Amino acid sequence: MIKTDMIIVGAGPTGLFTVFEAGLLKLKCHLIDALPQPGGQCSEIYPKKPIYDIPGFPEVLAGDLVSNLMEQIKAFEPGFTLGERAETIDKQEDGSFIVTTNKGTKHHAPVVVIAGGLGSFEPRKPPIPNIIDFEDKGVAYMIKEPEVYRDKKVVIAGGGDSALDWAIFLADVASEVSLVHRRQEFRGALDSVEKVEELSKIGKIKLVTNAEIVDLKGEEDLEAVVIRHKDTALGEEIKETDYFIPLFGLSPKLGPIGDWGLEIEKNAIKVDNTYDYQTNIPGVYAVGDVNTYPGKLKLILCGFHEAAIMCQSAYQRIFPDKKYVMKYTTVSGVNGFDGSRKEAKKEVVKSIN
Amino acid sequence: MIKTDMIIVGAGPTGLFTVFEAGLLKLKCHLIDALPQPGGQCSEIYPKKPIYDIPGFPEVLAGDLVSNLMEQIKAFEPGFTLGERAETIDKQEDGSFIVTTNKGTKHHAPVVVIAGGLGSFEPRKPPIPNIIDFEDKGVAYMIKEPEVYRDKKVVIAGGGDSALDWAIFLADVASEVSLVHRRQEFRGALDSVEKVEELSKIGKIKLVTNAEIVDLKGEEDLEAVVIRHKDTALGEEIKETDYFIPLFGLSPKLGPIGDWGLEIEKNAIKVDNTYDYQTNIPGVYAVGDVNTYPGKLKLILCGFHEAAIMCQSAYQRIFPDKKYVMKYTTVSGVNGFDGSRKEAKKEVVKSIN
Ligand SMILES: Cc1cc2nc3c(=O)[nH]c(=O)nc-3n(C[C@H](O)[C@H](O)[C@H](O)COP(=O)(O)OP(=O)(O)OC[C@H]3O[C@@H](n4cnc5c(N)ncnc54)[C@H](O)[C@@H]3O)c2cc1C
Ligand SMILES: Cc1cc2nc3c(=O)[nH]c(=O)nc-3n(C[C@H](O)[C@H](O)[C@H](O)COP(=O)(O)OP(=O)(O)OC[C@H]3O[C@@H](n4cnc5c(N)ncnc54)[C@H](O)[C@@H]3O)c2cc1C
Repeated sequence: MIKTDMIIVGAGPTGLFTVFEAGLLKLKCHLIDALPQPGGQCSEIYPKKPIYDIPGFPEVLAGDLVSNLMEQIKAFEPGFTLGERAETIDKQEDGSFIVTTNKGTKHHAPVVVIAGGLGSFEPRKPPIPNIIDFEDKGVAYMIKEPEVYRDKKVVIAGGGDSALDWAIFLADVASEVSLVHRRQEFRGALDSVEKVEELSKIGKIKLVTNAEIVDLKGEEDLEAVVIRHKDTALGEEIKETDYFIPLFGLSPKLGPIGDWGLEIEKNAIKVDNTYDYQTNIPGVYAVGDVNTYPGKLKLILCGFHEAAIMCQSAYQRIFPDKKYVMKYTTVSGVNGFDGSRKEAKKEVVKSIN
Repeated sequence: MIKTDMIIVGAGPTGLFTVFEAGLLKLKCHLIDALPQPGGQCSEIYPKKPIYDIPGFPEVLAGDLVSNLMEQIKAFEPGFTLGERAETIDKQEDGSFIVTTNKGTKHHAPVVVIAGGLGSFEPRKPPIPNIIDFEDKGVAYMIKEPEVYRDKKVVIAGGGDSALDWAIFLADVASEVSLVHRRQEFRGALDSVEKVEELSKIGKIKLVTNAEIVDLKGEEDLEAVVIRHKDTALGEEIKETDYFIPLFGLSPKLGPIGDWGLEIEKNAIKVDNTYDYQTNIPGVYAVGDVNTYPGKLKLILCGFHEAAIMCQSAYQRIFPDKKYVMKYTTVSGVNGFDGSRKEAKKEVVKSIN
């Protein structure tokens, strides 16, 4: 059982910044995310695209914003349960909560913050009838630990950035990488497309275009995939492999959170925006894209504000008897849980004779 | 008469970011500030100190945050009336407003946004009985246009960063700079104190410590100041000068805004935080430190959110018949009023043969 002060469901920009605001109040956080990496939509959908409306950044790549946030919260030592979906929430007698993931990991805290964005990112699966039989037995929809594929045979399917980038990366790790794509055209960063072309020419990536995987074979674990070529003259071929990784993108689904007894409106969680972004369940807050209230804007900068306000209320809930007086970071500095301290240089008082 | 879509009273971080959010909606802004430079508290009180709780910046100097915001809004070409205090607001028959400054400058717009922070920064005046008689006749409490002092005699009083920095700057502009300070110790950045010491040694700054100005002389304009030394043996001396600039800091006062018919609570303006941060006067909004509502936090990041939400409501007020659909800057790009366009690079679709 992981014990913390605040369980944060969703490690997008809002969830990450919540760690910072909580940290200023000396509250520990643990984040759960279905994705293998933090950053939510910014990391999953558009890491290399610039955002122009983050205050103080005339322009910032979504991926860099996430790195900056990770750096900003580092000293508060947040815990992470990544690649797992928060599945159930159970209220305890003392008013605290246990949140359990689809892999059975349990988290316990007096406060739960849902920063789930548009929902947990779930893979788009290819329509192969027996694919479910091989999930976690050779079929993976996202790559969490690349070392798993060392010296193995891997078939990747897809034509976007993820498929291109992972094919390039695994070319140096796996014993054999095949990239299968329905079309001849790839949609991704120019340098990625060119790199794949190059690796294909020197035989480090086996490129199979105008083709798709239609069947999987194996006794228990995956042993081979069946590739069907568009060109009927080529027909079908059986390709031996240890792993099959279809990378057709992830799409967010509100998912299990929808069954937690929260008031839902327009596929989002209704919160009390007049005070603290709390949901209809006291002790459960919702911030960022996942919440809704009159006038709600699904913007990153709004999630930041909601997180700051929400943490004050959570603090009161956890420490009903303590009175917290907000202090400016500039004036009081920032004390990390790792013992680090950030502080403005003091003014110098110097005598001139 | 300056005409615009939104008059923003206060050019602190909140007022500045309001220009950006308004600009995305194609609304023009004009800012009024009592200070000679934009940035509010960040520029006036702690430009060289780091802030740690701006989301995405593990650390940023307050002055740099302001420069970044100025850069971010540049393409939206905001207008500025600086060094003037917004004094009166008059509602017109058509529901629009005229805001007039203490210098008589008039601004006309359908929407007024008060981003006045802790209030307009007013100078702390030294207790010299006849100082009011010489205001704008040789006495100035802040420096708007340094060129005014070229080849003139200037007496600066004060022992903090402003006094130090301006004495250093004017040493190269004025024909003579005296720096008068009550104590021997100066309170400021170490390099400023050292620079003043150096300039004093080579005679470019006349340093008079343990002394203060107690009287001013002049027929119409200022002609001389009376310096009283703590050391009674030295007594009083009369020093001829064209200008006397006491720099004892500026302190914010809610000021004239308090008489605009707005609901005031705890020295701040009550707003409707349940929807759009509007005040009790429709068409007048209040954002940032100047407003109050249940749970209000006087943080820069909160002002940013309030500005974003508020602009949506202002847009509806200005264009009641248009329906605005929010677009992500990443997806739709940013069109400046100066014809500039910022846009994410498009994905490449490339065929591999
Ligand atoms: C193409 C594009 C461009 C954009 N451009 C801009 C822009 O210019 N400016 C701007 O402000 N915004 C922009 N946005 C929106 C912005 O990305 C979102 O507002 C922001 O990501 C919301 O952050 P969040 O932390 O609330 O949620 P998200 O980023 O959606 O993160 C939520 C996380 O929660 C996880 N999660 C959800 N449910 C569960 C569960 N049950 N278990 C485990 N994990 C779960 C998800 O996997 C996800 O990682 C853009 C979005 C897109 C798609
Ligand atoms: C030492 C110090 C450290 C701080 N540290 C932090 C920190 O770490 N993090 C954080 O988030 N915040 C911090 N703050 C607070 C932060 O500076 C404020 O929240 C922020 O400046 C508010 O921005 P604003 O634009 O709302 O108002 P302000 O910055 O106060 O700007 C308001 C402007 O309006 C002008 N104005 C007001 N009335 C009138 C009028 N009638 N006519 C013309 N002009 C007018 C004023 O002259 C002023 O320039 C700190 C403040 C101080 C003093």
